[in-house]
Amino acid sequence: MPAPETAPVARMADAIRFLSLDAIERAGDGHPGAPLGCAEIATALFTRHLKCNPADPEWADRDRFVLSNGHGSMLLYSVLHLAGYVGMPMEQIRRFRELGSHTHGHPEIAAHLGIEATTGPLGQGIANAVGMAVAEARLAAQFGPELVDHRTYALVGDGCLMEGIAHEVISLAGHLRLGKLVFLWDDNRITDDGGTDLSISEDVRARFRAADWQVLDADGHDVEAVSAALARAEGDPRPTLIACATVIGRGLPRLEGKRGAHGGRVFPADLAEAREARGWTDPAFTVPDDVAAAWRAGTTERNRAAYESWSDRLAALPPEARAEFERVMQARLPEDWRAALRPIRERLAGAGEARATIEVSAEILADLVRAIPELFSGAPDLEGPTRHKQDLAAFTATDRSGRYLHYGIREHAMGSMMNGMAAHRGLAPVGATYLVFSDYMRPSLRMAALMDLPVITVYSHDSIGIGRNGPTHQPVEYLASLRAIPNMLVLRPADAVEAVECWEMALANRHGPTSLICSRQPLPALRRDADGENRSARGAYVLAEAEGGARAITLIGTGSEVALALAARDRLQAEGYPTAVVSMPSWEAFEAQDAEYRRATIPPGSIRVAVEAAIRQGWDRWIGEDGGFVGMTGFGASGPAEELFKHFGITAEAVADAALARLRGQPGTQ
Amino acid sequence: MPAPETAPVARMADAIRFLSLDAIERAGDGHPGAPLGCAEIATALFTRHLKCNPADPEWADRDRFVLSNGHGSMLLYSVLHLAGYVGMPMEQIRRFRELGSHTHGHPEIAAHLGIEATTGPLGQGIANAVGMAVAEARLAAQFGPELVDHRTYALVGDGCLMEGIAHEVISLAGHLRLGKLVFLWDDNRITDDGGTDLSISEDVRARFRAADWQVLDADGHDVEAVSAALARAEGDPRPTLIACATVIGRGLPRLEGKRGAHGGRVFPADLAEAREARGWTDPAFTVPDDVAAAWRAGTTERNRAAYESWSDRLAALPPEARAEFERVMQARLPEDWRAALRPIRERLAGAGEARATIEVSAEILADLVRAIPELFSGAPDLEGPTRHKQDLAAFTATDRSGRYLHYGIREHAMGSMMNGMAAHRGLAPVGATYLVFSDYMRPSLRMAALMDLPVITVYSHDSIGIGRNGPTHQPVEYLASLRAIPNMLVLRPADAVEAVECWEMALANRHGPTSLICSRQPLPALRRDADGENRSARGAYVLAEAEGGARAITLIGTGSEVALALAARDRLQAEGYPTAVVSMPSWEAFEAQDAEYRRATIPPGSIRVAVEAAIRQGWDRWIGEDGGFVGMTGFGASGPAEELFKHFGITAEAVADAALARLRGQPGTQ
Repeated sequence: MPAPETAPVARMADAIRFLSLDAIERAGDGHPGAPLGCAEIATALFTRHLKCNPADPEWADRDRFVLSNGHGSMLLYSVLHLAGYVGMPMEQIRRFRELGSHTHGHPEIAAHLGIEATTGPLGQGIANAVGMAVAEARLAAQFGPELVDHRTYALVGDGCLMEGIAHEVISLAGHLRLGKLVFLWDDNRITDDGGTDLSISEDVRARFRAADWQVLDADGHDVEAVSAALARAEGDPRPTLIACATVIGRGLPRLEGKRGAHGGRVFPADLAEAREARGWTDPAFTVPDDVAAAWRAGTTERNRAAYESWSDRLAALPPEARAEFERVMQARLPEDWRAALRPIRERLAGAGEARATIEVSAEILADLVRAIPELFSGAPDLEGPTRHKQDLAAFTATDRSGRYLHYGIREHAMGSMMNGMAAHRGLAPVGATYLVFSDYMRPSLRMAALMDLPVITVYSHDSIGIGRNGPTHQPVEYLASLRAIPNMLVLRPADAVEAVECWEMALANRHGPTSLICSRQPLPALRRDADGENRSARGAYVLAEAEGGARAITLIGTGSEVALALAARDRLQAEGYPTAVVSMPSWEAFEAQDAEYRRATIPPGSIRVAVEAAIRQGWDRWIGEDGGFVGMTGFGASGPAEELFKHFGITAEAVADAALARLRGQPGTQ
Repeated sequence: MPAPETAPVARMADAIRFLSLDAIERAGDGHPGAPLGCAEIATALFTRHLKCNPADPEWADRDRFVLSNGHGSMLLYSVLHLAGYVGMPMEQIRRFRELGSHTHGHPEIAAHLGIEATTGPLGQGIANAVGMAVAEARLAAQFGPELVDHRTYALVGDGCLMEGIAHEVISLAGHLRLGKLVFLWDDNRITDDGGTDLSISEDVRARFRAADWQVLDADGHDVEAVSAALARAEGDPRPTLIACATVIGRGLPRLEGKRGAHGGRVFPADLAEAREARGWTDPAFTVPDDVAAAWRAGTTERNRAAYESWSDRLAALPPEARAEFERVMQARLPEDWRAALRPIRERLAGAGEARATIEVSAEILADLVRAIPELFSGAPDLEGPTRHKQDLAAFTATDRSGRYLHYGIREHAMGSMMNGMAAHRGLAPVGATYLVFSDYMRPSLRMAALMDLPVITVYSHDSIGIGRNGPTHQPVEYLASLRAIPNMLVLRPADAVEAVECWEMALANRHGPTSLICSRQPLPALRRDADGENRSARGAYVLAEAEGGARAITLIGTGSEVALALAARDRLQAEGYPTAVVSMPSWEAFEAQDAEYRRATIPPGSIRVAVEAAIRQGWDRWIGEDGGFVGMTGFGASGPAEELFKHFGITAEAVADAALARLRGQPGTQ
């Protein structure tokens, strides 16, 4: 559908250019290359194709647009302003890159503003987009095309495509035939170092074709050509790459087509020169009326009928169906989700069996998927060891009703796709892998935390307890490195009951990601209470109180090592030292308790010994610099698990000895 | 060159199968799928093509073989035993996966045994191999083909190729035309989850062709066919992919061709069945004489002439040239390398200018490359901001003499390729990027630490000090997460002189990787001493002693925040509190000092306040649980750097206030 002829398309695109240049010049830095080079692409997409309602940016059935080359943030802000998005007045454009504005250096997720994802670290945005397209396909299968029928677009630069994660998602998107997914490639043949020929010779088009994408070419400065390609994308069952030939920094004579355009400074003289060259006579931070009208016509007015008829369809639904749709699209869990955990907790507490917590987690999931229909599981080729498929059908190219994704051996894709699903809303993603592979997805874990996304990753194989597979597969530093990520909830249950409690904490955590860390090896049942109080939710709690007098010693453990602390307590009690054991499944949750509870649970100044089959880093916060720590000081080794715990000195005896040494005033022994 | 007809090739391959099966059955677990499925591939490569000398495994000009699918470790151990490698007697095969053996669950680097890299986390091995091929090409240009003319082979599984890092290195290897690089793809159409069609539809061959590789097909169970393909690889200027069609677990009737073959348990009955099926009558852990003879003929004897003539050429070199070649291939730095740092230290100490430490690092590198010819720099498309190219020529497809690699936007490739270069020996790799992108290469950083490889990564943009680019690009948790990796030396210099000292520490660290963490913003000169004593080498040292009495307060800072600590000291001294400032560029180096030095530098029990524009995790080790900490508690924000430091309360005032609060017995204020 062509835009009304109120303003020539060239002026509509130039409006992006001058808003961006004005803002970048005023801020003193920024990245002019992409906003200038992609002005026509954005004009074609936003004014002729993108389903959106600037007055209702969070419209559930809107098309999603991800600016994967996030450094070109002014492109997005300019477009949102021109389209009339309610949160993007000119004041925001003027305040580009100022502290407290919405117009950050890189876009930061804010669906109410029209910003679908935080982008900047290259490759993340396109992977988010693939996750969004999965969410759309699954939700369309669930709620029908009357409610869910939208497309996902990502603008991508050469950098996004060079990053490894790109190929993971390109391959998987082709495999899944995500036909409503379109990548618009800003093919400008320039990166920060200079010409792309410095580092790539690959035939990018052939690479996409090999992954079963439709590949189209378009002149990226021809709105009609880009629009025609977008129309062709709509009619193909495969995902589509549109290679848009562009000139970086187009319209800025001094930098146009040059390496310096990427992030180069823009000066007042540049603005004058650009205005002269493009015949743009309006002052800074203004949009000519005809251009503004054309943008509104191409966005709000073009979509008005679709929005209204969709709203009518939603309103016409039975109240229950409507409420359910709105619930999942607002990322609210079902009212009674906690009830689903009660039976399994009772079962596990009653059985009292030694269980691998990864197995328990899988059983919990099997119960939860019945209560929480938006749960969407998956693993990177570890269905067998993680067991988190259970009875779920696979989400495939031909069956969109499945709720389990075989990600293949692509951890990074899983991480970022889960972010995309959560950002899209409607799915509650859960991914399962080995703890050591969290490093492969670490950039996406950080983005989940930065975006406040409720993404749950369940990790198995959490320590030297895996045994013979050796140090490559034995996490040692991972508890510390995950705890280091701000806004990441890290949980390490000690037994089956704690695993249930930790799952409840994970689901209750709605504004950030959770790492649920499980053992491969069976852990004895330490908790038999079925009353339903979630003791883990306090982060740390007294599992066994000191007996026979005032507490002399506090032993603190997490996960598989809590049992060692209990065994050490037996010896210490027998030797006459009243000893408590604190189980500490979550540092973050404990930190959130009031000071009184924290002091009562782990008394400062007392004899404290922690045991965890991992490095000490961070433990001094809880045990003091003179506290005892029994754990790892370096990498693991290949051998049977029970031998490894002895070899590395992680034993009940070592824990007791560390406490006794401190009682005798010899803290240096551990 | 065909192997002598002393034993049919089928028996040579079956010898791999039965050694592997015997070992896996005895260990009780392992991964039989690859050793059985790749027995013919390995036989073809090792007995007809691989240049090696089992009596001198570290022969500098040997071909490199990397088992990228490291879970198939028994394949490698069996082959090394059959070839007669000096460190792989039958005793080691018997002790597969035992604590203390060399035959670990996954191969662990030990060139003296014939193991070129630690592998297991998928994708790492092939990236190491690409780095090795770069090292070979660069060294061949430097020392000539008489000394350096070898190939690099990697055996890769589907998992390796699905990982994102694979595409990064496939693309780059094609671009660089690494013609002596061969990937042997175990194309068995099975992964852990089941058929590869669960997660991939991609035309892998077309993908490699798109990246300008030669692609060949071979029946992976036909030694002749694999050998013919290997011969064709030798004659092509492009890197070669040989797609070897195989059956996973071939020869183990119960699991052959099945998903369970990947990591399934092997029982005595399986062994009996396999022996029956293949007509293998020899007892466990024995190699028939004819087979042993054929293996020796195909390896040691086939290579004897090449080894001897190479040794003769080396011996015939002028002593100085020979010594230089041996020096770099033993990864020893030039005797006088430290001298190269003296002039720049004097210059910087004398100038006393405020400098960005990333700029200083680049200048240091410019001096070092003249003194250390094996230094090999590079960056993932950040040549401009990191400046670590200096005057170095680029290593390209047509110029192998260059010492700077444009990695493209491929951080993970850079990390693992540097590991490969260091494992190959002959190059001393240095990579430069932004600190936030270390997460993209984190799996390779861990492998560098695990492999004890002297790899130096220089990071710029180390805190909120980068300003307006915002939280996606502002490291907050990275100092903690890098410090968490065992055997990783983390350095954060406070000014130009400390930057020189830290570079000296980085180069002196020969048995593990170094992270050298630099600022983008200028840091004032705090050190003007040109005497050459490396004070940073102690990890932490008193930069400014308390005056006017016994030390009452110790302020500790790193990097850009040391200047804040000095400013806080000015105020505290003015208020009458004798205050010392400790600069602490390296926790690891400080930890290695004796207790007396540590106590004297940061007295336990005293008033201690640390300041670092990062999270607190781990600082309690140095300041105690009641110590003061001024830093970050969450992610950063987009705004001017100076505003951000105020916004997040990282100021000299806050540091002084935290100390004063503790003097007054109110530790809770910070």
